[in-house]
Formats: sequence, C-alpha cells, structure tokens
Amino acid sequence: MTDNSPIRLGMVGGGQGAFIGAVHRIAMRIDGQFNLVAGALSSTPEKALASALELGIDAKRSYGSYDEMATAEAARDDGIEVVAIVTPNHMHAGPAIAFLKAGIHVICDKPLSNTLEDSLLISAAAKSSGKLFILTHNYTGYPLIRQAKAMIAGGELGDIRMVQAEYAQDWLTEATDADNKQAAWRTDPKRSGVGGCVGDIGTHAYNLSRFVTGLELDSLSADIDAFVDGRLVDDNINVMLRFKGGAKGMLWASQVAVGNENNLTLRIYGSKGGLEWAQENPNIMYYTPFGEPKRILTRGGAGANDAANAVTRTPGGHPEGYLEGFATIYNEAAASIRAARAGNLDTGALPTIDDGVEGVRFILAVVNSSADNAKWVTLSEQ
Amino acid sequence: MTDNSPIRLGMVGGGQGAFIGAVHRIAMRIDGQFNLVAGALSSTPEKALASALELGIDAKRSYGSYDEMATAEAARDDGIEVVAIVTPNHMHAGPAIAFLKAGIHVICDKPLSNTLEDSLLISAAAKSSGKLFILTHNYTGYPLIRQAKAMIAGGELGDIRMVQAEYAQDWLTEATDADNKQAAWRTDPKRSGVGGCVGDIGTHAYNLSRFVTGLELDSLSADIDAFVDGRLVDDNINVMLRFKGGAKGMLWASQVAVGNENNLTLRIYGSKGGLEWAQENPNIMYYTPFGEPKRILTRGGAGANDAANAVTRTPGGHPEGYLEGFATIYNEAAASIRAARAGNLDTGALPTIDDGVEGVRFILAVVNSSADNAKWVTLSEQ
Amino acid sequence: MTDNSPIRLGMVGGGQGAFIGAVHRIAMRIDGQFNLVAGALSSTPEKALASALELGIDAKRSYGSYDEMATAEAARDDGIEVVAIVTPNHMHAGPAIAFLKAGIHVICDKPLSNTLEDSLLISAAAKSSGKLFILTHNYTGYPLIRQAKAMIAGGELGDIRMVQAEYAQDWLTEATDADNKQAAWRTDPKRSGVGGCVGDIGTHAYNLSRFVTGLELDSLSADIDAFVDGRLVDDNINVMLRFKGGAKGMLWASQVAVGNENNLTLRIYGSKGGLEWAQENPNIMYYTPFGEPKRILTRGGAGANDAANAVTRTPGGHPEGYLEGFATIYNEAAASIRAARAGNLDTGALPTIDDGVEGVRFILAVVNSSADNAKWVTLSEQ
Amino acid sequence: MTDNSPIRLGMVGGGQGAFIGAVHRIAMRIDGQFNLVAGALSSTPEKALASALELGIDAKRSYGSYDEMATAEAARDDGIEVVAIVTPNHMHAGPAIAFLKAGIHVICDKPLSNTLEDSLLISAAAKSSGKLFILTHNYTGYPLIRQAKAMIAGGELGDIRMVQAEYAQDWLTEATDADNKQAAWRTDPKRSGVGGCVGDIGTHAYNLSRFVTGLELDSLSADIDAFVDGRLVDDNINVMLRFKGGAKGMLWASQVAVGNENNLTLRIYGSKGGLEWAQENPNIMYYTPFGEPKRILTRGGAGANDAANAVTRTPGGHPEGYLEGFATIYNEAAASIRAARAGNLDTGALPTIDDGVEGVRFILAVVNSSADNAKWVTLSEQ
Repeated sequence: MTDNSPIRLGMVGGGQGAFIGAVHRIAMRIDGQFNLVAGALSSTPEKALASALELGIDAKRSYGSYDEMATAEAARDDGIEVVAIVTPNHMHAGPAIAFLKAGIHVICDKPLSNTLEDSLLISAAAKSSGKLFILTHNYTGYPLIRQAKAMIAGGELGDIRMVQAEYAQDWLTEATDADNKQAAWRTDPKRSGVGGCVGDIGTHAYNLSRFVTGLELDSLSADIDAFVDGRLVDDNINVMLRFKGGAKGMLWASQVAVGNENNLTLRIYGSKGGLEWAQENPNIMYYTPFGEPKRILTRGGAGANDAANAVTRTPGGHPEGYLEGFATIYNEAAASIRAARAGNLDTGALPTIDDGVEGVRFILAVVNSSADNAKWVTLSEQ
Repeated sequence: MTDNSPIRLGMVGGGQGAFIGAVHRIAMRIDGQFNLVAGALSSTPEKALASALELGIDAKRSYGSYDEMATAEAARDDGIEVVAIVTPNHMHAGPAIAFLKAGIHVICDKPLSNTLEDSLLISAAAKSSGKLFILTHNYTGYPLIRQAKAMIAGGELGDIRMVQAEYAQDWLTEATDADNKQAAWRTDPKRSGVGGCVGDIGTHAYNLSRFVTGLELDSLSADIDAFVDGRLVDDNINVMLRFKGGAKGMLWASQVAVGNENNLTLRIYGSKGGLEWAQENPNIMYYTPFGEPKRILTRGGAGANDAANAVTRTPGGHPEGYLEGFATIYNEAAASIRAARAGNLDTGALPTIDDGVEGVRFILAVVNSSADNAKWVTLSEQ
Repeated sequence: MTDNSPIRLGMVGGGQGAFIGAVHRIAMRIDGQFNLVAGALSSTPEKALASALELGIDAKRSYGSYDEMATAEAARDDGIEVVAIVTPNHMHAGPAIAFLKAGIHVICDKPLSNTLEDSLLISAAAKSSGKLFILTHNYTGYPLIRQAKAMIAGGELGDIRMVQAEYAQDWLTEATDADNKQAAWRTDPKRSGVGGCVGDIGTHAYNLSRFVTGLELDSLSADIDAFVDGRLVDDNINVMLRFKGGAKGMLWASQVAVGNENNLTLRIYGSKGGLEWAQENPNIMYYTPFGEPKRILTRGGAGANDAANAVTRTPGGHPEGYLEGFATIYNEAAASIRAARAGNLDTGALPTIDDGVEGVRFILAVVNSSADNAKWVTLSEQ
Repeated sequence: MTDNSPIRLGMVGGGQGAFIGAVHRIAMRIDGQFNLVAGALSSTPEKALASALELGIDAKRSYGSYDEMATAEAARDDGIEVVAIVTPNHMHAGPAIAFLKAGIHVICDKPLSNTLEDSLLISAAAKSSGKLFILTHNYTGYPLIRQAKAMIAGGELGDIRMVQAEYAQDWLTEATDADNKQAAWRTDPKRSGVGGCVGDIGTHAYNLSRFVTGLELDSLSADIDAFVDGRLVDDNINVMLRFKGGAKGMLWASQVAVGNENNLTLRIYGSKGGLEWAQENPNIMYYTPFGEPKRILTRGGAGANDAANAVTRTPGGHPEGYLEGFATIYNEAAASIRAARAGNLDTGALPTIDDGVEGVRFILAVVNSSADNAKWVTLSEQ
C-alpha cells in the first residue's frame, strides 16, 4: 500500500524577498503532498533563520549552507527525501550535486545552470545517483499544454509545419536600479550566465515548443540585442528554428517589449490543423481543424482531453493559473518520488536533467549564433 | 508576538466525490495558514473515515456527526479553532449553530441556508457567540474585485448609475441524471431551498454587486423560469434592481445559457467612469475614464491599486485564478482568527453573517416577486 | 431582361453636417445601384443648395421643400424612383406620405416617427400606395445577423429560451452643449419623441432581437431613467421581455454607459445551442452547440451559411463593417425596386412599415410601462 | 475653384470572376470620387464586353487590349484621366507603361511586378511621365495605421527597437485545384514571379512595417518553404530583419497556417511605448506607454489622433473595414489627381513607384537569402 503521507522536503534559496522561492512553496502546498521541514534559505545566516522560522521550519533544521544541510539531513531518520533548489542560476550546481550525492532527490529551478560545464557536472551527478532530478519548467504543467501535446502526438494536427513561439515581457525596458534584486542578478552575466533574456525566458519558450511538439531541433540562427544602454546581457532575441524532419519555427523572446507582462505564446500549425495558446489566459486554447471554424477549447470544458483532465483541479470556467500549473509539476514530482521508493525512476512528462542540459545548450547556441552573424548552429556543437 | 503557526481546522462535509469541499481544502492550503485535523466529512460513517484517512486526518478525529465533533473538539486542548462547513445548503444550520455554541469559529459555504428561518437561527447564534462567522462568497477575494471596490469607494467612477451583473452557466441545459450528485441536490428544492439557479449562482452575482459598489438594494422585480421540463426549481432568472440613491441594475443568472461555463460578469457605470470584469479571465479589468481610451488594468500590473496588491501573490502576467481568490478568503479568515484571540472580532472585507441572511432574503425576494408577476419587492419584507 | 442601370434616387434631409445622411449616401454607393439626382437636403434653402452642389446634384433638382420635390420629381420623365428620408424622427411623416402619394418608393431612417399617430398615418399611406416602404434598420444587414436568423429558423439552436439584447453607448454621459446638433435633437422630446435612448438605439436592439429570433413579443416591463440632470428624455432603459411561446429576454440600452461606443450585442440561447454576436466586431459570431466547444464563426469563413454569404462582399479576414451592412439594405432595396417594376412588392428580409409601427409601439410601451412602475404592458395596447 | 466632379477612370483586368477588381470598384465608389467609364477587363473579348456592360461601361469603351484602350482614351476629349490596373502580377508592366506614355495616371495593384526588370521599366516610365503612379498597398489606408505612423513620427514610442510583422493565412494549406483561379496564378511562378507567399502577402507586411515606422531596411535573413508537395513557390516565409539605426524585426508570412484567414498583425516596440494592431479587427489598436496600463485606442474614439480622423468616415463603434481602408487609397488618389491638374505631383502618404520597386527587391531578397542558407542580404544588391 502506498504511503500517501506528505513527503519531507527541504529548500535551498528562497529566503525573505525572493520571488521564485515563494512560488515553489505555494506550488508544493496546493495539492498537499509535501511538508517543508528544512532549509538553507539564504547565504546570510540571520536571514536564513528568520525566513525558516516564518515558514514553520524548526530552527535546528535551518542550515547555514547547503553542504551542511545535505550532510545533516541525510543522516537523520526523518531527513528530507527531496530538496528544492531555487537559487540564482550560477548557484544550482553546488547544491544539486551535494544533495544527489547525499542520496536526496532534487527539484531544481530552470535554467539548469549558467554554464555548460556546471550543467554537465549536474547531469553526471544525476545520472549516477539513482535519484530523481526534476527541472521546474513549470509551463509544461498547464492542462491545455498537456492537451496540445497529446493532440499532436495523436496526429490531430497532421504533420507539424511551423512553430511560432514567443515570450515577451517589458519589465527591463529601462535600465534597472541596483537595488532591484530580481533584475540585478538576471542582468549580471556572472550570475545569470552569458544569456540574459534567452536564459530567463527564451529557454521556457524553447522548452515548451519541444515539449508540445515532440520535434527535435536541427539548427538555429539567432540575432540578439541588448537594447538598453550599458546592459551586459541580451534583452531581446530573434531566432529562426529548423527542426529535424523539416518543420520550421520562429522564436522571439524579449524583456523590453512594452505592453507585455508575461506573454508566453505558442502557435503550432500542421497539415491538418492549428493550435494557438497564450499563457496569460491559460484556460483557453484555439484549435482549428483545417476547413472548419475555429474552436475555443477550455480547460475543464467539453473539448478537454484526458491528458488535460488528468492535471485539472476545477471545472471549466473556474480559472486555474500559474500557481496551479506549477503545482502540477510538484504533484507529479510527489508521485514520482513515491514510485522511486520502489525503484521506478521514470518521471513521466516531467522535465528532466536532459532537458536542463539541452536548455543550456540552447542558450549557448543562441548567443554563439548571434555572435557569428546569425550563423546556423546545432545544439550538440556547443 | 503573534503566533503564526497554522490554525487547527475541522471540516463538516466534503467527503469523497464532493466538489466544493476539495476546493475549500486547496484554498486553505495555498497560503499555509491552516492544518486540517478533524472532520465529519460524510453522513456515511465508512465514507467519512475513508475520506479522513485520505486527507491525513487522524482516525480518532474523524467523527460520525457534527454534534459529536463539536463536543469532542471543544473538549480537547488541541481542539480545532475553526470549522469549515461545506455541506449542501439545507445542512448548514445544524453544524453552524453547534460549533458556534461550542465556541468554535465557523467558515460556511454559501448560500447561508435554504430557508430564512434557518438563516435567522444561524445569525442569532453567531451574534451571541462571540465567535467569527465567515461566509465564503469566494468571488470577493479576486484582486481586481478588491481594486474595483476601492476605486468606487474612492470616487473614481463618480456617482454609480448602473450595475449589470450576470452569472451564466450551461451545465443544466438538459434534464440531469439522478446520479449526477452535484446536479441532484441543486435541483431538489428540499435540499437547495426554493431557489435553484438564484440560490446557487444568483446570490453570488448579487453579493458581488453589493460588495463592489457598496450600494444598498431598495427593491427588485424578477421574472424566473424553469426551462427544462420537470425541473422543480428555477434555472434562469431575470431581475431588475433599484438601489437606494437612484442607481439601477439588471441581474441575469442562468444555468441553461449554452456556451457559458461559469461566466460571472460585472459591469458598473458611474458619472465619471466605467468598469467591466469577467470572472473567467479574472486577471484583467477594463476601466474607462469618461472621454479617454479604455484601459486594461491587470492584476499585479502597472495600474493595480493597493487593495488589489494586498491580495496578490504573483506578478502581472502570471495568472491567478479561482483557487487563489478562494484562498484569499481563507487567508483573511486566518488573520481574523488570530486577531480574535485578542478579542478583535472585526473581519474586514470578508462576507459576514449579515451578508448571508441578506443573500437568503434575496433568494426569497426573487422567487416571491416572480410568483407575483414581477412585483417590486424589498428584502426586508421577506 | 432586367434593367440594371442605377436607380434614380432623391434625398430629404442629410445636408452639410448631418451624420446619418452621409452614411446613407455611402451605403447607396457601395454596390453602385443608385444615382443621387435630387434632394431637399436642408430646411435652409442656401444650405440645401450648397449641399446639393457638393453632391453633384443639378441645382434645378435641389428643392426648398419635400412637397415641392415630390410634385416636381413625380412630373419628370426622369424623375426619382425612390426617396431616402434621413431627417430627424419628427420629420419623417410629412415627406414619407408626400412621396408615397406621388407614387415614389420610400426608404426611411428609423425609428419610423416620434409619435404613434404619425406612424399610423405613414403606415396607412404606405399600404394604400402600391409603393415600397423600407425602414433602414441597418443592423439587420450584417452577414452574421443573417446567418443567425437562418440558423435559428433552421432549428440549429432548438427552442429559443432566452434573448439578451444590449445596446450601450456613452456619448451622452454628460449634459450636452446646445450646439451639438446630433445630441440636441435626440434629447429634445419635441423632435425625438417621448423616448430618448429607447427610440434612438433601444428600437434597434428590439428590432434585431425580433429579426433574428422570429419571436413575437407578448409583453414587457421597463424601468427607465434620465441620469443626467435636466435631461428630458431617458438615457438608460432596463427592460424585461416575455415572448409568445415562453421565451424570456432582457434588453438594456444606455447612452451613459462609460466605455461603450456603439456596443450592440445580441446573445441568444436555445435548448440545443447558443449564439453571441457584438456589432463592434461584426465579422465574428460565437456559436456553441450544447456539449461541444464554442466555435468562432466568421463572415466569409468556413462556417458561413448561405444566408450570410448572400450578403458578403469580401472573403473571410477582410473585415466588412457598418457601412457594408447598411449598404446591404440599399442593395436589397434596389433589387426590390426592380422587382416592383413588374408588380412584385415583396421586400424579403428588409424591415417594413410594420416593423416601423412596431418599433414606435415598443418605444411607447417602454415609456408607459416605466411610468406605471414597470407594469407589464403589450404593444397592441399602446 | 476645384472641380469636384467625379474623375473619369478606366480599368484593366477585373472582369467577371476576378476578386481584386471587384474590390477596387467598391473602393472607388465609396467616396464617390470616380466614374468607371472605360475598360479592358479581360483578355477574352466577349468576357471583357459582358463585364463592361454589367458595370455600365459603354460598349464602345470596352476595349480588346490595353494598348488599344490607352490610345483611344488618350485621344478622346472625355477620355479617362486615370487607369486602375488589376491584372495578375506578370501583366502589370505592359499596361502601366502604355498608359503612362499616353499621359494617363496609373493606379496599380501590388506587388508592382513579378520581375525586377519589369519593375524598373515601370519605374523609369513613371518618373519620366509627369504622371502619377499609385500602388494600392491598401492596408496603409486604415485609420489606426495612420495613427500609428503619426504616433511614431511624433516620438510617442521613443526609439523604435523591435518590429514584429506577421501575415498569416491558411487557404493554401492543401494542394489547390487547377480550376481555383485565385490560387492558380498565385502559385504559378510564371505569373506570380519567383515569390509565392512572399509576393502575395509578405510584401504587404513588409510595406506596412516600413510605412508605419519610417525605418529603412539594412538587411534581412530568410528561411522559406513550400510545405505542400509539388508547390513551385513558397507558402511560408520566416525572415529576420535588421533596420538601419539598430532596430530589429521578425516577419512571418504564411498561407498554410491553419486557423488564420487574413491575419496581418503589426507589433512595434520602442523605448517609451508599444503598439499592437491586427487587421482582422482594424478598429482597435493597443497602446501601452511604458509603466502604465495598456490602452485600447479605437478608430473614431477618444484617443484617435488627427491622422486617423482625417481618413475616418464613421464614429467610434461603427466599424469600418477592409473596403473603407482601400477606399481611402482611392480617395487620396482622387485628391492627388486633382492637385496634379495644377502641376502638383506630390501624393502624400500614398504608396509610390519607389515602394513598388522596393517591394520587388524585398521579394527577391527573401528568395535569394533563403537559397543561400539565410545569408544576410540587402535590397540594393538584388
């Protein structure tokens, strides 16, 4: 009989003032599958402790470093079974490897790392660990994204011809103050990596395109810019994609597109039909079978398929959002962790370490292609 | 210093297969302010126990009746501090009164009851209890609804002239099978009360209109129907509203409007501006200052005001939905419960027992007006 | 063989500065079926002449009064075959009767008149004349409105249960200057009639509901207001409708709904499906067969039916608008006029004198019901 | 004093069954500035005559060839002052040069020609003729496009950074029958030129981007496809754009994007604001000043500027469409022709012969770049 009691989880990063850490915590609470019982929430010890207490973590399990935490938790009978790593990109590799080596599953924010070297180290550690490594490409958790993936896999769109992927924001339209913590590390190449916009959001658009279509990339050609004076990383990327098998794509990501908050949009066209979905209103998706009127498919509605319904909590018209999509990643992680207790390391639809490495290669490919006048490049040559 | 540890909560109703009980549980988990530790989840004891175990409730605190639960929990040192009542309408009064008398705060699903008599009994119990009574008119928890309320209170729309409130669904378009549990009790006057559609969703539209505008009803004129053969309660209501001070309104609620899933829409027009909001995409609201272009206000975006931001979890473009709006009710309930420990029984913007009684009077007024050829009636004469 | 040469047309009203006269002229030009050759364009002779010359009308055929014009044109071999009357409401009866008596077909702007007495006089004149009388309820010319009518007539929506008709504007939100010509006569009961908003736009919403559904009105209950201080006619009307056969409806028209330009919206729900259409983007209509995803039907698109295609000029995605819808009325008027040469007085789908009289009765019914505390009234008792 | 009587116009092409010829005729009628009095409407003489008679053209002025027409009309005292050329792309040069040489102004459909050679010949003829040459890039006639152009020229968006231009259709998703006249010539390289989709619609998207932003192209990189088996010209083009001064762009045009009818969309982002407009609902445009809520600008509405109002016929909420936008090109052509009588050859905002040549170079650049693995190419090197 399966033990359905909540899974003990620890967190690295995500102290007071952090954005994505708070999101992870809500996501893990929604379906009640986790208990947050340990943390190394900040590199500043007092802040780490204060954050831990606020979150109901026992002071003894608030650690000053991830190393200390990995060692201590691995030694406890009631130690954490999984850790969520929500630090900035350049601080993923250290804790990820430490916890994997300590025999603790890892849930890690994306992109996997700010360098390919670190990514490969994490990958090696993950593959030799016998533990799970789950990357929170959270947008894959939306029910209608699951529906799109299943429709395409089932041939409802025919042969895929074109993918139009976009991720537009505007919050970096102007130069940012040094005290904007979210902006600061994302625009600092030492912390975010060589990619700015491409790493922060371009990877999401790329990952989602791959996730939904199942297509593999052949090569890409990119033209990137830093439009704001003095910015050291890109804030706008234009990319043309060639997929294996002949499909083509365009990918645009921008953090300086005024009027866009978090506009991740995916449009996919095949020989038999088209799909159009935008993250800001994720409860609807437009589907057109060729030669027929466009349909509005709704999450939980009459046209929802099994893949969508499997990750749906509320009926049609009762909108789910970003946090529920994120929660689905955690919910499926919980199921995977329980299955792993019996030795099953399959994580189903969840983004994997390979997706993480591919994402880093994508970042490098975009940056390197652009540096070489938009030369066509492959991921494997990065 | 405030004790921020989770509040011990029990639940009445909400066993396996129930819709709204599961929603309440997610809502209470999102912000991590409650622990569900006791329940009388079903009137069938085995089902109650099975449901409790699934939810991690200790078998000893799974009760066969709400009476037993109220008595036992009140006697425990670690007894529940609040109970959530999520039974069908006709089963609210019993547990509500029992727990209030036992000195336990009550969070109760809407409408308050299926009869005015029961509503008044609950009200009397609540008022004499010194305990909190919170009604989950969850739609009041949406950030942009809070924004609208604050804008109107601040005079940004000038004098309110018209309110157009709608709540359209289509799930009862055809006669329902007896084994559709959700439909069965909602269309059975013994359980839902004299109102069908009016009680289930019309009350939400009415409550939201009142909540946002602050206007008080003078009188209403209603014309209601049961369009489906054999249906014993209304499935469509047309209502004209007259507010004190001269504003007018129309309220339409329907469960047979094909193509509408859960289309709760509120449009409010004043002498200086207009607001338009629809629940199915709750992250945007249209605002037009007279003589200027329409604006799209977004939750978390550039135009969000303090009232909206106070109940916002994610940045603009990261959509929140139904569950987050519901969670805000629970989050504010938690804050109120903590304040009540020090004797402060104010519940701020939360819907109260008076809103609950008013909702029942609204149901009766609609039904009675329609029975008298849409005669204008007041709530107080019900 | 049919004579397809353009039909000689005259115009009464519509001189410089007039809004609706210019619209009529564009509408009649679009399909090239008319030549404007005579006019009594203004009650000010110099302005009438200047307007005529601007429009290429021979000075000899610019008349100082409609009486003179009717007499003179009837006497010419090349006299006009039809007159378009585009004066304010209170000046329809005089010219309409004069031209009908002179044996000239009449195309008349709506509403038919500002009084029932005048309406009945025009009706009597029309019926005894052997000539055509066509009312320009232009919104009936939209292709998707024709599609909706045909779908309902063909049973695609099943039995019609509810009609939600709205016509919201905001241009009269504040008191208007005396020199705003368009506002001045519309808010002057001597010229517009007892109804303000109800006559100017409420009649359109009512007519369109009737046109599309084919339902006949049983009775209505209305609550109307003049929200702007000092306004002598209504600027907001709330109406409940009961149709023969049991369907119900609500009709809201307003000229003080801030944020609405010309928002005529029609939503119709039957036992098998629902339709939703809004005039401001008239090239799409939402159609939901019960239990299936909502479709977006487009003018000229895959789901367009014969009735829509018959009045469509451009392919899907090449938007047609207000002027094309209006032009369809003129185009069908031209066909009717040609058919009338052979004695066929049938005008097909075109709004008739009976629609005109019904519209005036509707205005009176709304005003009178409201004056009697929203009493249910019929049209025939007006 | 200006002679405001209608301008005598002839047409080449546009006989029975032609799509764009009929559109031109409606467009020229809307504002009443032209009389169609002569034509060489078809290369089949009987069809030419039948078409002419249908259109009210005197049989004597229905010509068997454009050469004959040019000669005969130039010799008449009442000969045409302007000709509209609406033949397929490969048949523009002959008539254009013939009429220009005969001293007759030319209005010509786009693209200018199917070859650069012919384009340059037309250009030379136009420049030495002293006559007007107007290219019907009709989408430049939309009021909100004029508004966007003026806003950008006035600095309201700051420095332009990115242009996202799209033109998606789906009508060529499958192989077309030989008897589909519209599809046949557009997919035949002998008639359409080397470009298929790029020439038919890609040029519109490019022209509109240039028109609105005023930016000049530096270079482009293109990746084009013919997704349908056996198709000889492209049906999908992915293009990256680099503008002089540093702005970047992406341009996607497709005729196989299932679910798109005529989806020409333009999104422009600058350092101070963003604009988003889509042709299928051309009466609205989204405008976001950085850091403020998005506005919905409407044609004829509160936010409309002088440039938009100058080409607007109906008030806000009374939608104008494709034909009105097209008519504006004709209306401005009429004004230009009248001004040319006095020697003024300026055509204001109207697309010129230079735009036509640039459009042909754009087509070649896209095709040639793609053939060379998406190499960056300039227009001048074509």
